[in-house]
Amino acid sequence: MSTITLTSIQSGNPPTIPLPFNARQPHKVTLYPLSNYTFGVKETQPEEDPSVIARLKRLEEHYAEHGMRRTCEGILVCHEHNHPHILMLQIANAFFKLPGDYLKPEEDEVEGFKSRLDERLAPVGRLGEGEEAGQWEIGECLAQWWRPNFETFMYPFIPAHVTRPKECKKAYFIHLPKTKILSVPKNMKLLAVPLFELYDNTARYGPQLSAIPHLLSRYNFEFV
Amino acid sequence: MSTITLTSIQSGNPPTIPLPFNARQPHKVTLYPLSNYTFGVKETQPEEDPSVIARLKRLEEHYAEHGMRRTCEGILVCHEHNHPHILMLQIANAFFKLPGDYLKPEEDEVEGFKSRLDERLAPVGRLGEGEEAGQWEIGECLAQWWRPNFETFMYPFIPAHVTRPKECKKAYFIHLPKTKILSVPKNMKLLAVPLFELYDNTARYGPQLSAIPHLLSRYNFEFV
Ligand SMILES: [Zn+2]
Ligand SMILES: [Zn+2]
Ligand SMILES: [Zn+2]
Ligand SMILES: [Zn+2]
Repeated sequence: MSTITLTSIQSGNPPTIPLPFNARQPHKVTLYPLSNYTFGVKETQPEEDPSVIARLKRLEEHYAEHGMRRTCEGILVCHEHNHPHILMLQIANAFFKLPGDYLKPEEDEVEGFKSRLDERLAPVGRLGEGEEAGQWEIGECLAQWWRPNFETFMYPFIPAHVTRPKECKKAYFIHLPKTKILSVPKNMKLLAVPLFELYDNTARYGPQLSAIPHLLSRYNFEFV
Repeated sequence: MSTITLTSIQSGNPPTIPLPFNARQPHKVTLYPLSNYTFGVKETQPEEDPSVIARLKRLEEHYAEHGMRRTCEGILVCHEHNHPHILMLQIANAFFKLPGDYLKPEEDEVEGFKSRLDERLAPVGRLGEGEEAGQWEIGECLAQWWRPNFETFMYPFIPAHVTRPKECKKAYFIHLPKTKILSVPKNMKLLAVPLFELYDNTARYGPQLSAIPHLLSRYNFEFV
C-alpha cells in the first residue's frame, strides 16, 4: 500500500503522501470480510492413505505409471479487521492444509483443480439452486514445491542435479467472489488464519503454509 | 519445471511425461552462468549512518518531511550447475544485503531505482565505452516489506491497525542480460548465493533474504 486514499484521511494531521510506489505490481486485489461467506457441513472425507508410508508407496506407483505427480492447492483470501486471512482446513484438530489435491493423470490442470476444489468445498445437492460446478476463479500461481524423492520433504526449487522430481505442488491465488457458500467435510474444520499468525511460524504451520505471507506481499489489497 | 525437454532425455530409461503443468505462471526465465559476468572494483561506499539509531533517526526526519520512505532492492539471478544463485553484497565480512537503496523523495520509482543500482554496481569512467547509465531490466515486484514504526523490524504485510507505515521496501526481479560488467565498492564483496543456501536459513540471512527461494518458486528457469 504505497499511498493512502483521500477518503481515509480523516485526521487533523493528514499524512504526507510520497510519490507513487506501485510499479511492476499486480492490480489491487479486493478482499471481502469473512462474514460474507457461508459455511456448511458435508460428509466426512477420510484420508486416502492410512499412513505416510502408504502415501509415498502410492506416489511411487503413480510415478512409475504416469510420471511426476501434479498437485494443486488454493490460497483463498478474505479479511477481518482489514487484515488478510487465509482459509485453511484443519484435520482432526491437528495439522493444517490448503484445499486442493493431486490431479488425475488425464486431467487438464485448471479443470482438474476446479474439480478438486469442488470435491472439498462445494455444497452438495444444491447445484440446482443457483450454484454451478467449478465456480472458482483460479488466479496466479504463487509458489511451486518439488519433491525430489519418494520422501516427505519438498523444496521451493528443484535441488541441483535432480532431473526427475517425483511431485510438483503448485499453490494458486483463488480470488473469492463477494459472497460464496462453502461446505466443509465433517472431519475437517475450515479456519481463517491471519497472515501475522502464519508469518515466522514454521514450527506450527510448516514451511509451506508459513511462507504464504511472503508469497502475497507483492499484492496491494483493498478491503471492502 | 513441469516437463522435461526432449533434448534432455538421453537415458535408456526415458521418463514418463505428465500432461502440461504450467498454467497461470510467468514465462520461463533464462538464467546465464555466473562466469558470464565480469566483476570490477570501485571506490569504497561507506554506510550513510554510523549506527542503527542514527539510521532510524534519519528515517524519522525523512518521514516528517516527505512521508513514507520508498526503498528498492534488486534480486539479480544467475546460475551455477543449473541451480539459481542470487547476487548479494556482503559488507565487512558480516551482513548481507541486496543491491539497492531508498529513493529520493522527488524521484520516479523505476528511474530512481536504476540510479541506485548504477551507483552500487555500474562501472565508473567507462560509460563512454559501450556502457550506458541505467541499463537494468527491472522486472516484477517480488515482495514488499513494511516498517510500521521507527524501529528495526519489518513485515511482509501491513500489520492490523497500522495505517501509516514509515517505510516500504520493494524487491524486484532484475533480469540480467547474457553478459554484464559489474563494479563492486571496495568495502563490499559480491557473492553468488545458491537458493538452497538461503532456504530455511533465517539465522544466517535474516527473514528477507531467506524468503527469496519462496518468492522465485513460481518461475520456471531455463539454464543456458
Ligand atoms: Zn495414478
Ligand atoms: Zn482488529
Ligand atoms: Zn529525505
Ligand atoms: Zn554441481
